[in-house]
Amino acid sequence: MTFSQKLQQVTSSLGIGLCVGLDPDPDRLPEQFSPDLNGISDFLHEIISITKPFAAAYKVNTAFYEAWGASGWQVLENVAFSLPPNTLRIADAKRGDIGNTTKHYAKAFFERLPFDAITLSPYMGGDTLQAYLENPDKGAFTLALTTNPGSADLQHFSDGRTMLYQKVLSLIPTWAPHKNLGAVVGATHPQELKQIRADFPQVPLLVPGIGAQGGDAQAIVDASGPHRAPVLVNVSRAIIFPQDEKNFPLNIADACKKFCQLLNIKIEK
Amino acid sequence: MTFSQKLQQVTSSLGIGLCVGLDPDPDRLPEQFSPDLNGISDFLHEIISITKPFAAAYKVNTAFYEAWGASGWQVLENVAFSLPPNTLRIADAKRGDIGNTTKHYAKAFFERLPFDAITLSPYMGGDTLQAYLENPDKGAFTLALTTNPGSADLQHFSDGRTMLYQKVLSLIPTWAPHKNLGAVVGATHPQELKQIRADFPQVPLLVPGIGAQGGDAQAIVDASGPHRAPVLVNVSRAIIFPQDEKNFPLNIADACKKFCQLLNIKIEK
Repeated sequence: MTFSQKLQQVTSSLGIGLCVGLDPDPDRLPEQFSPDLNGISDFLHEIISITKPFAAAYKVNTAFYEAWGASGWQVLENVAFSLPPNTLRIADAKRGDIGNTTKHYAKAFFERLPFDAITLSPYMGGDTLQAYLENPDKGAFTLALTTNPGSADLQHFSDGRTMLYQKVLSLIPTWAPHKNLGAVVGATHPQELKQIRADFPQVPLLVPGIGAQGGDAQAIVDASGPHRAPVLVNVSRAIIFPQDEKNFPLNIADACKKFCQLLNIKIEK
Repeated sequence: MTFSQKLQQVTSSLGIGLCVGLDPDPDRLPEQFSPDLNGISDFLHEIISITKPFAAAYKVNTAFYEAWGASGWQVLENVAFSLPPNTLRIADAKRGDIGNTTKHYAKAFFERLPFDAITLSPYMGGDTLQAYLENPDKGAFTLALTTNPGSADLQHFSDGRTMLYQKVLSLIPTWAPHKNLGAVVGATHPQELKQIRADFPQVPLLVPGIGAQGGDAQAIVDASGPHRAPVLVNVSRAIIFPQDEKNFPLNIADACKKFCQLLNIKIEK
């Protein structure tokens, strides 16, 4: 199944899917888990089992695993192989390097590990994304307009008509003939998100920022529909670390239900 | 010792230092090393011991280690701890993420591992670089103008006066009050390199591209001098995989000598 078909399959009739971000901050684990790699590993396996009925995709941010060195990578590998294969499994790695080197990253995430997609930085240009896009069954999401305040520093740099993030979006069809390249656009920019959906309706999106970062879920729903490429809406902290940690695991499921409702996603699994 | 002081210390009176890139491609190991992680590990330890008298810095590209999964990270850790502490030890990771997440990458490379510096992608903006720059003893090099052909896709994007890579260079002093942020500029762009040295003389550079990628060593020498920030010139493949692999390890030392000569570096160690 191609990346494009899988993305269609995991998302709702409106083309929206909930992506659960597995970013295990050891300082925020519920008290029944030890704040070490064993605790993190147990916690993540529980999270996956609770969120499975709601998740269209999972996103694993490599930073939280690399912080533990080689043993952290072992946990990352175990987690990757535990993700349900009927979801879109995303390595949130934001890698970018020259061609000779990216082959090795592609091998790491797509051959050694079973990820379906990876996040990438576009700064180095289209040739540096190719190793991840050659196989139509795998895909990538390039950073475009990110959630953080500093995103304006370069992403708003403009030639008078086009801002850098729009330039990135406009290059996506050239860079990805297999239609397996989407873009990361933060929900903290609802106006721009709406405009991006109108200007680039065929670009799939990975949208972070509606949980802990305060982005706008309704803007995503309003900008979705059957004639547009699918959107995966990522929530990390607001699902895996809900405020009321006493009722774990019930509150995790409740958080998923809440976000599915906000995003008009019917639970069918 | 601050990053800035260390950079000064490892480079020549002209402010140039040779950086040896440890990118172990298993398909290119000399035949006496097995094309697996054991072979790679032995090979790298030999390379470090041969190149030590010539190296101002070492650059370890994480892709070549991640391709082997958790065991590859174990080798990366061993290599990091084997690098001579009197050289500048750079993790060529090209990471970039939001603040909450970069703390974990900074922990991975600066606390768990003994790297002095890391390479970063600037695309997400200045706030995403801060976690790496807080400690004046550590530093970073942000991508600016890279060696690959696709570098023009975004790095040449212009507001009519300034190109994106120049914008990045101009923001460096604002982003790094401790003067511990340099830039990656490829030697494959000798004219631009010369201009960058004139426009931004206080920005330290990490310059790849003079070995296998065919960049211009003389342009680097011409653009250096005591009133400018230091330059680390990286050579990976052309040092660690010289064409005549029969004479390993003699040819590795010869390649180092050749590049030191090209770069006007006197061997003092």
